[in-house]
Amino acid sequence: MSRLVPVSDPADPRLAPYRDVRERDLTRAGELVAEGRVVLDHLLGAAAAFAPVSLLVLRNRLAGLEPVLDRLPPDCPVFVAEGAVMDAVAGFAVHRGVLLHARRRAEALPDFAALAAELGRTGGVGVVGIGLSNHDNVGALFRNASAFGARFVALDAGSCDPFYRKAIRVSVGAVFSVPFARVASAADAAETLRRAGVRCLALTPRGARLLAALEPAVPSALFLGAEGEGLPETVIGAMESIAIEMAPGLDSLNVSTAAAIVLHHLYAGRR
Amino acid sequence: MSRLVPVSDPADPRLAPYRDVRERDLTRAGELVAEGRVVLDHLLGAAAAFAPVSLLVLRNRLAGLEPVLDRLPPDCPVFVAEGAVMDAVAGFAVHRGVLLHARRRAEALPDFAALAAELGRTGGVGVVGIGLSNHDNVGALFRNASAFGARFVALDAGSCDPFYRKAIRVSVGAVFSVPFARVASAADAAETLRRAGVRCLALTPRGARLLAALEPAVPSALFLGAEGEGLPETVIGAMESIAIEMAPGLDSLNVSTAAAIVLHHLYAGRR
Repeated sequence: MSRLVPVSDPADPRLAPYRDVRERDLTRAGELVAEGRVVLDHLLGAAAAFAPVSLLVLRNRLAGLEPVLDRLPPDCPVFVAEGAVMDAVAGFAVHRGVLLHARRRAEALPDFAALAAELGRTGGVGVVGIGLSNHDNVGALFRNASAFGARFVALDAGSCDPFYRKAIRVSVGAVFSVPFARVASAADAAETLRRAGVRCLALTPRGARLLAALEPAVPSALFLGAEGEGLPETVIGAMESIAIEMAPGLDSLNVSTAAAIVLHHLYAGRR
Repeated sequence: MSRLVPVSDPADPRLAPYRDVRERDLTRAGELVAEGRVVLDHLLGAAAAFAPVSLLVLRNRLAGLEPVLDRLPPDCPVFVAEGAVMDAVAGFAVHRGVLLHARRRAEALPDFAALAAELGRTGGVGVVGIGLSNHDNVGALFRNASAFGARFVALDAGSCDPFYRKAIRVSVGAVFSVPFARVASAADAAETLRRAGVRCLALTPRGARLLAALEPAVPSALFLGAEGEGLPETVIGAMESIAIEMAPGLDSLNVSTAAAIVLHHLYAGRR
């Protein structure tokens, strides 16, 4: 256990990546900070795509974390701090006792065309998010995609980074276990998917067909737009569109909740 | 428009209810602070249950809010502030330009027995939450209950207050439009519902029947427990239990998402 490095100075420069994690966003540099035991387990299970840089842990959490520590690369330092130090560095009550600083291996980011081709070959369901700028929604979308066995989540450039701390947290680690790719646009993604033999479905309150009438055939890809704006009309017009049955006159559902309802329909219907 | 009261001093005692709304919880005194236009519309539509006390609004939002101002009681002051003042009082970026301080009329809180009896008489679906202590989850539960036309949401004493600011916000105002009642316990609620002729359903990953096989018969009440803990075994054992079809080996869904999937099944199946 020689990697354990006690730290007692909140200004220690080695702790810079953990400073004010609530306010900052490391992801632009391909770096991220993940918090909590469950999330760490997911991240360490995706070692091909994410390289741990260091860990910051509460002294009194150390004993329970041995299985996690055993999975870290030998050169990854484990900074051990008392609660007051960790609070001062990361911000009170943000850290859940354990924070991991990691680097995304850029070369490991899946290529969307490859994911689409695999979906076409093996069947199953994929998810394509357009303009999803809210971190909670994107995190929840990954969580729901994982619950119903989706093969990937793809996001356009107008969607936020799923490796932002808040998205990671809300996903309960699913951002590390569900393959993720960027797409240039909804039209591009649809074109790639169609060439791979994948049925494209647009979810919109004005969908031509109600969900209950949707055949759960695969391979399928579910296109989702942001709450309020929704998907562009050109996208909706170019594929099968579906609507969720809902009480009249009400605001639409949260986008990740709407996705869960459709993904459940496709999953349960194929059982 | 004589009720317009310009304010320029963040320390003005009349603004005390709006101070640091992000950190505080007024609900213990039957008071609440709601933010944003959509939420206010819902609250003002439930005038029998909620009495506006005052409004705090950004000067540059005033023009667009006239339909809201027209619905306020004549003795309700409208405090008008510049952005810097409002930020200093309420906390930056929390207020969405308009905050309403209101009082819940205690006498208007529905009686659970009356809601159960009405459900039994008229059909439809009700929701009973047990131990739901997370404000986001409770807010989202109301939003989803509203989307699928649930007749009420009832919560036990171990669940949080749905009129807390964060729950109101996540509900997009549905906490004001979906009737709410407290129940003493899950067992008590089930007893009351059964006497009213309502079918009781427990949602649990170990449910005896899968959702797709559930008859969408009404009147029905859906019992939900917190993520992790779930519903007490005694509750599950005493009623029909259902499980959502899900990919093996994964964490359960968020409780409000799980509720949405079941409520959609019951709603779509009855159309």
